Amino acid sequence: MKKTPSRASRSSASKKPPGVVVVGSVALDIVHTPFASSDLVLGGSAVHFSNAASFFARVGMVGVVGEDYPLAQLDFLRRRKVDLSGVAVLPGKSFLWEGRYLDNFLARETVRTEVGVFADFRPVLPEHFRAANVLFLAAIHPDLQWSVLQQMKSPKLVAVDTFKLWIDVARDRFLKVVKHADLLFVNDDEVRWLTGEHNLFKGAKALRRLGPKWIVVKKGEHGSFLFSDRGVFLSGTYPVFEVVDPTGAGDAYAGGMLGYLASQPRLGEATLRRAMTWASVVGSFYVEGFGPDGLKSVTLAQLRKRHREFCRMVSLP
Amino acid sequence: MKKTPSRASRSSASKKPPGVVVVGSVALDIVHTPFASSDLVLGGSAVHFSNAASFFARVGMVGVVGEDYPLAQLDFLRRRKVDLSGVAVLPGKSFLWEGRYLDNFLARETVRTEVGVFADFRPVLPEHFRAANVLFLAAIHPDLQWSVLQQMKSPKLVAVDTFKLWIDVARDRFLKVVKHADLLFVNDDEVRWLTGEHNLFKGAKALRRLGPKWIVVKKGEHGSFLFSDRGVFLSGTYPVFEVVDPTGAGDAYAGGMLGYLASQPRLGEATLRRAMTWASVVGSFYVEGFGPDGLKSVTLAQLRKRHREFCRMVSLP
Repeated sequence: MKKTPSRASRSSASKKPPGVVVVGSVALDIVHTPFASSDLVLGGSAVHFSNAASFFARVGMVGVVGEDYPLAQLDFLRRRKVDLSGVAVLPGKSFLWEGRYLDNFLARETVRTEVGVFADFRPVLPEHFRAANVLFLAAIHPDLQWSVLQQMKSPKLVAVDTFKLWIDVARDRFLKVVKHADLLFVNDDEVRWLTGEHNLFKGAKALRRLGPKWIVVKKGEHGSFLFSDRGVFLSGTYPVFEVVDPTGAGDAYAGGMLGYLASQPRLGEATLRRAMTWASVVGSFYVEGFGPDGLKSVTLAQLRKRHREFCRMVSLP
Repeated sequence: MKKTPSRASRSSASKKPPGVVVVGSVALDIVHTPFASSDLVLGGSAVHFSNAASFFARVGMVGVVGEDYPLAQLDFLRRRKVDLSGVAVLPGKSFLWEGRYLDNFLARETVRTEVGVFADFRPVLPEHFRAANVLFLAAIHPDLQWSVLQQMKSPKLVAVDTFKLWIDVARDRFLKVVKHADLLFVNDDEVRWLTGEHNLFKGAKALRRLGPKWIVVKKGEHGSFLFSDRGVFLSGTYPVFEVVDPTGAGDAYAGGMLGYLASQPRLGEATLRRAMTWASVVGSFYVEGFGPDGLKSVTLAQLRKRHREFCRMVSLP
């Protein structure tokens, strides 16, 4: 008989559907960079996404942790109105990832992965999450992404992320999810693994034929671009002078983008372009601290200030 | 006794100073890519620069070739009013470079270099070149760059390029040139070799302390950025779906930028930003053909059309 999991937050903050729902990992990380090592810090795509998205919209977070998880450390998310009622607490240990960045952050290797209760993750969306307008399926197994998609009522925007492992072991099932997605986040390697194309623009164009209307290619410090029916939108990355830890910046980018989109009345090219500028700014704060710390204590005023700076940095006279 | 060199063009097109003078190599190239090999094509920084700059301003080209050089093939530059009276023809063979691109253009190796008469290059500027407003010192030996700088009257804008060899063998003399330059073109590796900084933005900031008011960091397909007293301007690269040969794209970028600047009444942040958009467009045409071919038969109307597209691709609503 299956144990009924407890919940990270017994009563959800509100029974109104959140603006954006994220399903992903909730983990503990240890990160080594060429310059320093972190303690045990909060990690996982759902945490990083929510950290960023909560600046713009009410977030509903879906994930699983073990009984060892320092739930109190998620208080900064609660204060930003993140609804944690979708985070299950299971007997056992939380997902733990230890990694090391090499060669001035150009390469990353995994030192240790302890999957823990994440192996048993069967996402069940709280009833009031199902009517959310925006859904982010972080890089979890495509079967779980699919099951979440089935639980949603009629989201206006479904965005999907992935990583190499899932393309390798469950390509067909991932492509099924992609077919039903409106927006796909990929990095340059994933474009190549998914399409066989070495030219990123050709690759992004090919990805649109798999279903999504919008392809967002994230190139880290080199910026990002959107491929839509309107062609290409080139977006820069806000310059960071001191990178501390890039972990989670990709999820935060997605969080900034989708959080902003959830806050807007209309989805379209113009809104997506603006969303990417916010995502870039959010991502730049993210890499300035270990784990979620870079964005944790940032105020909306600081975010807006950097966003104004960013807009000046890309504006053509 | 030194032989008096003949000239590629006996009478200069006009005795008015050109808008922009370039001093660099005039070569013959053989290029191998993962997909094809070129015949013997026109090469050299001065050729690529002039090819691009001549869309915007009258160019005066300074270089040296051997008697074997197919001067008639430079007719396309003459037709664009490039003044070749600064190109000396010496007895002997022209500079020849054979190179190979590997790993989907991520790496490049030299197969063969025959320096030929370029070893004896002692640039002498035709009298009417010396009053030009804009000077581009392409990546030649710093002593030659310095000697050219001494021959100029009072250029409003001196821009300098280099490559690893000169940083290795003549660092101090290169830094002397840099000290007198207004604008320095560098790629990401050069930022690191010159400053020891791995962070490109910190590196670019450090480069400004060496003298130049403006640092332009070229990142190929990943765009470029300007570092000035106004901080950072982030510029994208026009998306190219089919790269044929990247050779010369960096020099063409400089040509597009400086040619545009030479055509403008005022130098300043706004003009430089606009110049970089034209440079990006010029560079995108460049990689679409072997050697100078990508831009050779392009019309000003085509250039303008792609520039409008580019501006749409980076514009924020």
